[in-house]
Amino acid sequence: MRKNHKQNFLPFSSEAGVIKSNSDDLLQVQFFETRKLTETLVSRLSAEDQMLQSMPEASPSKWHLAHTSWFFETFILKPRGVKVSTDPAFEFLFNSYYEQVGPQFSRGQRGLLSRPSLEQILKYRRVIDLRFYELWESFNTNELALVALGIAHEQQHQELIVTDIKHAFFHNPAYPALGKCSPASVNPIALQWHEYPTGTYLIGAKNGFHFDNEAPQHEALVHGFRLANRPATNAEYMNFIEDGGYRNSRYWLSDAWAWVKQTQPNAPLYWIEDGKKWLNYTLGGLLPVDPLLPVCHLNFYEAAAFAAWMGKRLPTEMEWEVAAAQVEPVGNFLNRQLLHPKAAVDSEAQQPLQLFGDVWEWTQSAYLPYPGFKPGAGAVGEYNGKFMVNQWVLRGGSCATPVGHIRATYRNFFPVATSWQFSGVRLADDIL
Amino acid sequence: MRKNHKQNFLPFSSEAGVIKSNSDDLLQVQFFETRKLTETLVSRLSAEDQMLQSMPEASPSKWHLAHTSWFFETFILKPRGVKVSTDPAFEFLFNSYYEQVGPQFSRGQRGLLSRPSLEQILKYRRVIDLRFYELWESFNTNELALVALGIAHEQQHQELIVTDIKHAFFHNPAYPALGKCSPASVNPIALQWHEYPTGTYLIGAKNGFHFDNEAPQHEALVHGFRLANRPATNAEYMNFIEDGGYRNSRYWLSDAWAWVKQTQPNAPLYWIEDGKKWLNYTLGGLLPVDPLLPVCHLNFYEAAAFAAWMGKRLPTEMEWEVAAAQVEPVGNFLNRQLLHPKAAVDSEAQQPLQLFGDVWEWTQSAYLPYPGFKPGAGAVGEYNGKFMVNQWVLRGGSCATPVGHIRATYRNFFPVATSWQFSGVRLADDIL
Amino acid sequence: MRKNHKQNFLPFSSEAGVIKSNSDDLLQVQFFETRKLTETLVSRLSAEDQMLQSMPEASPSKWHLAHTSWFFETFILKPRGVKVSTDPAFEFLFNSYYEQVGPQFSRGQRGLLSRPSLEQILKYRRVIDLRFYELWESFNTNELALVALGIAHEQQHQELIVTDIKHAFFHNPAYPALGKCSPASVNPIALQWHEYPTGTYLIGAKNGFHFDNEAPQHEALVHGFRLANRPATNAEYMNFIEDGGYRNSRYWLSDAWAWVKQTQPNAPLYWIEDGKKWLNYTLGGLLPVDPLLPVCHLNFYEAAAFAAWMGKRLPTEMEWEVAAAQVEPVGNFLNRQLLHPKAAVDSEAQQPLQLFGDVWEWTQSAYLPYPGFKPGAGAVGEYNGKFMVNQWVLRGGSCATPVGHIRATYRNFFPVATSWQFSGVRLADDIL
Amino acid sequence: MRKNHKQNFLPFSSEAGVIKSNSDDLLQVQFFETRKLTETLVSRLSAEDQMLQSMPEASPSKWHLAHTSWFFETFILKPRGVKVSTDPAFEFLFNSYYEQVGPQFSRGQRGLLSRPSLEQILKYRRVIDLRFYELWESFNTNELALVALGIAHEQQHQELIVTDIKHAFFHNPAYPALGKCSPASVNPIALQWHEYPTGTYLIGAKNGFHFDNEAPQHEALVHGFRLANRPATNAEYMNFIEDGGYRNSRYWLSDAWAWVKQTQPNAPLYWIEDGKKWLNYTLGGLLPVDPLLPVCHLNFYEAAAFAAWMGKRLPTEMEWEVAAAQVEPVGNFLNRQLLHPKAAVDSEAQQPLQLFGDVWEWTQSAYLPYPGFKPGAGAVGEYNGKFMVNQWVLRGGSCATPVGHIRATYRNFFPVATSWQFSGVRLADDIL
Repeated sequence: MRKNHKQNFLPFSSEAGVIKSNSDDLLQVQFFETRKLTETLVSRLSAEDQMLQSMPEASPSKWHLAHTSWFFETFILKPRGVKVSTDPAFEFLFNSYYEQVGPQFSRGQRGLLSRPSLEQILKYRRVIDLRFYELWESFNTNELALVALGIAHEQQHQELIVTDIKHAFFHNPAYPALGKCSPASVNPIALQWHEYPTGTYLIGAKNGFHFDNEAPQHEALVHGFRLANRPATNAEYMNFIEDGGYRNSRYWLSDAWAWVKQTQPNAPLYWIEDGKKWLNYTLGGLLPVDPLLPVCHLNFYEAAAFAAWMGKRLPTEMEWEVAAAQVEPVGNFLNRQLLHPKAAVDSEAQQPLQLFGDVWEWTQSAYLPYPGFKPGAGAVGEYNGKFMVNQWVLRGGSCATPVGHIRATYRNFFPVATSWQFSGVRLADDIL
Repeated sequence: MRKNHKQNFLPFSSEAGVIKSNSDDLLQVQFFETRKLTETLVSRLSAEDQMLQSMPEASPSKWHLAHTSWFFETFILKPRGVKVSTDPAFEFLFNSYYEQVGPQFSRGQRGLLSRPSLEQILKYRRVIDLRFYELWESFNTNELALVALGIAHEQQHQELIVTDIKHAFFHNPAYPALGKCSPASVNPIALQWHEYPTGTYLIGAKNGFHFDNEAPQHEALVHGFRLANRPATNAEYMNFIEDGGYRNSRYWLSDAWAWVKQTQPNAPLYWIEDGKKWLNYTLGGLLPVDPLLPVCHLNFYEAAAFAAWMGKRLPTEMEWEVAAAQVEPVGNFLNRQLLHPKAAVDSEAQQPLQLFGDVWEWTQSAYLPYPGFKPGAGAVGEYNGKFMVNQWVLRGGSCATPVGHIRATYRNFFPVATSWQFSGVRLADDIL
Repeated sequence: MRKNHKQNFLPFSSEAGVIKSNSDDLLQVQFFETRKLTETLVSRLSAEDQMLQSMPEASPSKWHLAHTSWFFETFILKPRGVKVSTDPAFEFLFNSYYEQVGPQFSRGQRGLLSRPSLEQILKYRRVIDLRFYELWESFNTNELALVALGIAHEQQHQELIVTDIKHAFFHNPAYPALGKCSPASVNPIALQWHEYPTGTYLIGAKNGFHFDNEAPQHEALVHGFRLANRPATNAEYMNFIEDGGYRNSRYWLSDAWAWVKQTQPNAPLYWIEDGKKWLNYTLGGLLPVDPLLPVCHLNFYEAAAFAAWMGKRLPTEMEWEVAAAQVEPVGNFLNRQLLHPKAAVDSEAQQPLQLFGDVWEWTQSAYLPYPGFKPGAGAVGEYNGKFMVNQWVLRGGSCATPVGHIRATYRNFFPVATSWQFSGVRLADDIL
Repeated sequence: MRKNHKQNFLPFSSEAGVIKSNSDDLLQVQFFETRKLTETLVSRLSAEDQMLQSMPEASPSKWHLAHTSWFFETFILKPRGVKVSTDPAFEFLFNSYYEQVGPQFSRGQRGLLSRPSLEQILKYRRVIDLRFYELWESFNTNELALVALGIAHEQQHQELIVTDIKHAFFHNPAYPALGKCSPASVNPIALQWHEYPTGTYLIGAKNGFHFDNEAPQHEALVHGFRLANRPATNAEYMNFIEDGGYRNSRYWLSDAWAWVKQTQPNAPLYWIEDGKKWLNYTLGGLLPVDPLLPVCHLNFYEAAAFAAWMGKRLPTEMEWEVAAAQVEPVGNFLNRQLLHPKAAVDSEAQQPLQLFGDVWEWTQSAYLPYPGFKPGAGAVGEYNGKFMVNQWVLRGGSCATPVGHIRATYRNFFPVATSWQFSGVRLADDIL
């Protein structure tokens, strides 16, 4: 019966609306949808644009196109002995960090790969897709699980395609736009608080697709806390700036102050001072900073300093999850194509607004293993576990996160000086 | 009545054995004992030795002598308006990191302060001591609390005097000795495990002297775990080395592997390969690596890699505290003058051995605020709170920690690449 | 009469064979020939290839295409008020180092300019060419001199297009080829010496096109010397390597030895050890090192160390010029399309072989002003004079130098650690 | 007969006034005088002061004390098999850069040698002196030549002791003084010019003690030039500063402008802005900048930029030598103990003033070998020759140069960004 669906997937038209008879079919739809979305995302970028690498942490778009395909080839096709007739160098060139697979091309030099060309990489993608189409029926449970992982992996790289090209374009004095951010006029939403009592809460994921770092699900004693009804806004952050926030060591952690002294920031990444007003480089081009939007592209240092200036603190990731578990995971995700956070709108809400989408929210939690966590064996085990030092947790997804990718238990993580992700801040406080 | 004791303190002979009528008197004894011990510690160092600064993180001995005095002057004498007739530049020169007190002399250039001379600094210490002697009776509760803090602070710098001079001397091809480490021959103690059940435990300190970062005392749900009966030994670590531990990415966190590739280590700090055998620079000079001693001067990366190679993990700081709360805080501390860890000896013990003293034990916990933690107001509030990012917790004290300084709730913290402290590793594991 | 020629230049076909009635016409031919050759050079490079920038000193091909056009626009069209209807940002983006023209886009970030696209840049070139075609008749003497300078300037960038893409391609594990280097088998030519007596020689250029740094022409007293009959060969350099040349401080200048210790070279740039034999990345791909070819891509340190190992020295630029003034400036230049030096062939020659073409020859002369040198006023004066510190002189041109660009008085210059140019070494010696 | 003199030298009292019967005796006087002066120079420095190393290019005073002794031990005593019963580590610790002698202790870590102590090093000096006293009669011609070299070498380090401690003390906020600079009030001397005609001049040294880099003496054709009657003054340099000299790229070489942009200087080294006036750190302490004194502590970049702003240029080293050969080598040297340049005083002079002493004068000449130069064989051959790249020549000596050390043919050399020597600028110009 499943055979019937095959023709639907080729040539990769959208099948999201079709009701599937079982979860494997749903996975198949997701696979081809995801593969297609990646290519749609880069469709407004020239081959030259797709060469850009503006820092070692960011990669050229075409590298993301290839690496996500490499993932499927390496972890599903190769173990089967399936021949993907492309350049053997791809294994080396498009391995990101899997030491157990083999050595990797230097991360900071991915922008030097004019060859293979974008055209060859798109051909590579097509071959991978074709093999998956042909082999789908024969995948066993383990392989299907790896497919699900590969889909989630490609979704993560979709977000990186957006944030990496934004970072690269920012270096071009023409400030190119990728899309169109049209901020709607709204009424400001006052800062208010939701209270959560002390208790033993269930933290982490058990069923459904989730990353290994979200497990084991376990009980945690969380002390009572208050959480802000929305992310902090540009207006609030401008007050921090105007109050000399960047020049007063009082608000900054020690490492953070060293960062301030070294890099001399006076505003978040992508803000540009134009005489007396602030402009903001967005993927819709250069726009005035909109006071009602969530402040964005903060690093952890800035988020924590701002919270200290407000007399508050960042939430722990446990606190955030306790609140988020009570809310639907809907929001301003990549599918809305805004490519920028939007303003909070519903002031009558009984739950915190914008926990999902718009901006990732920095927590005060280091990225650490949950009790009983064991990384998987083999190269796939390198996916998450090996990053559990010197990184801090962000929660909730952003306007660049693919819809359906995120959930209350989802843990994102970056080094604390990172700001090229759509990262903002939601305040928390103790209950006295 | 308290007057009677005064003559005992001058000229600073040891009064530790004298029974005091109240805790203020005890504090007075501790104050002068601590001040004296600091000077005893450096008495084998020449004025030239006390100039040495081998890296920005370490300071010259004479700077420690001055800075600990500056602390007492700044936080207790100055607020009273007490004149300490020395150079006004001292405030600038000997402030370590208190931004609210004022600007600080560049940390990495402390070794360039040939003037004030050691002699002048010792005179400065004497003036401070004299003022404290004169004013003691008049101190109010708040000031006495600051004295207690100042004592603990000076004790921390006593440990740094030891670790910093060790680091500096290591750069001298003559490998100077400061004391005498005479390793006694003992029988090896097999690695065994103590089990601790899941439960809600009281974590942190409430009464007695403690740092703000140990509070608030609070309940935490700790999942069942096992803890090793002793720190890992040089013998075990040599097996790790011989098994190619430093060349196999499998055991290393991602940041750790980057560190390995960049710095190309093949043994812990202070190990020197001499043909086929390992020598160890100790404060007793260059000695063969003793297989029975706790492995020492590991950074977090090495500790975690070793644990992974053993198929185990590091304990969390909560787990460590649960175990340590059941043990007396005795051990091989600075007062024993070994200046090196010694071997575990009692294999019949019902509790883990050497939880206190010998080597600091890396935990897998980032250094984060306890629930409800608020840093104190004013400059003293910068003591601990502002370091709560990018540092990892060590527990238990070392052979360089002053006796009486440590307790089960005590939290030490350093960046993960740090290895010039006497830092080792005790394994932990889950209960399956 | 000159009007008649116009149609010949469009659409830019080759006119090199046509005899011109006067030098202006010849200049016009050279202008369009040069413009065309630049585009021919990049015609085998994709838009992606033309994005590559592998180090700050090298630029993307498309940037060279734009910058050479910017030069003509800035120094000839703009002063006339001629409108070139392109993006005003071009002035900023494509200024290399002319401070008096205005600020420059960061040199190391030229590889981040995906926009303007290659297509737009080619259009820009076409507009410039069209304006020159239209305005040619009206150019005055000063403008024609600037045209001649602009042609020489574009020729220099033709050489850089070749050397920069070679450096970039070397980072691609596929080692792409741009052309075809077919080494012909020849007989080795023994090292022999030509003698030149002490005398007062005329140094520098006076008539014909030349750069300001070649003037003023002046007398110099040159002491008698001997010069090798050909550049040193790969065979000779391999002997140096095999003799431990890279491991013996005796042959290296102090700075050079610091460079050796820091970068740990064991062969020239572009040599790759493959088991027991040496491969050479060339623009014809990866080939075995040919022992008879001139050794190439040496920096000054290597050239001087090799000379010291041979018991000889580098020539001064004066010595080189004395010898070269007696020889026709013919050789293996860019027009032969070998893109690699070739072996010396005529052992009967009465003059040194290969003084021109094949490889630039390092001299022991720092790049300094000639007696009476004054840099020109205005921005064009920045062309040469401001580089007269910390650079060393190379002479004679290479296989990547456009034919007709070079002469005996021509002074090329680079920092001493530079090796991505086709730079080799010809030995000199004193007459005892 | 020579025996009689021996008792005069011990205990090293001054014998400079005694008329000697032959040059060996004079050398003996010079040897012991030089040895003694070095110790006199450091006699106002504490053991702590003598530990200071403020940058890798500068060394602790006590290291200079030891290294100059090591030189005599290594090149004269050791080849004779004379036992100097000190630590064998000295050979490693106090070798500066002689690769052929053996490996060297890391230059940037000389400040980490608290041991051997200053006392031990002074004892080492005494042993060396005693051996020389005992062996003097037996030295052969070659050994006496090495003694002469060793004396000149120690004199060079005397100058470095002064300039290195000045640099180190500058990092101490107390700005310690070493001596007393008392500027006398004088009348300004107007800038005038001396002319020298084109001609063939004899350059370099042939007889008397000189370094190998001053030879071979040879003829050089020097084109006519003009030379300023005195070094440029602080008043002239302040005009350059006030005219925006440090902010105008027009005056700077390309590398120099990169240096300006990176280090953001606004005045010479050791100038400190105090409200509206400039202070100058001198070895007499912090003093107002005296407008009549020669400007000092310029690097080559600043010297050349200032000359360009004046519409002039730096002299070549040949031009300088042509002028200096006609002048007595007298001036403000180390023996005057001013430790600072003084103002020019005699405006009636028929020769340029202050060619010798006060400040080293930057030339526009790179430090290159003279025609026929061959470095000596063996380790002593590393003395000068191996620095002949990336260094520029200074001429004439300074207020820190030992009297008798300098001559018209003397070539000093430093990298162009160097400014911690007493280096100034004398203008030159072409004859039109």
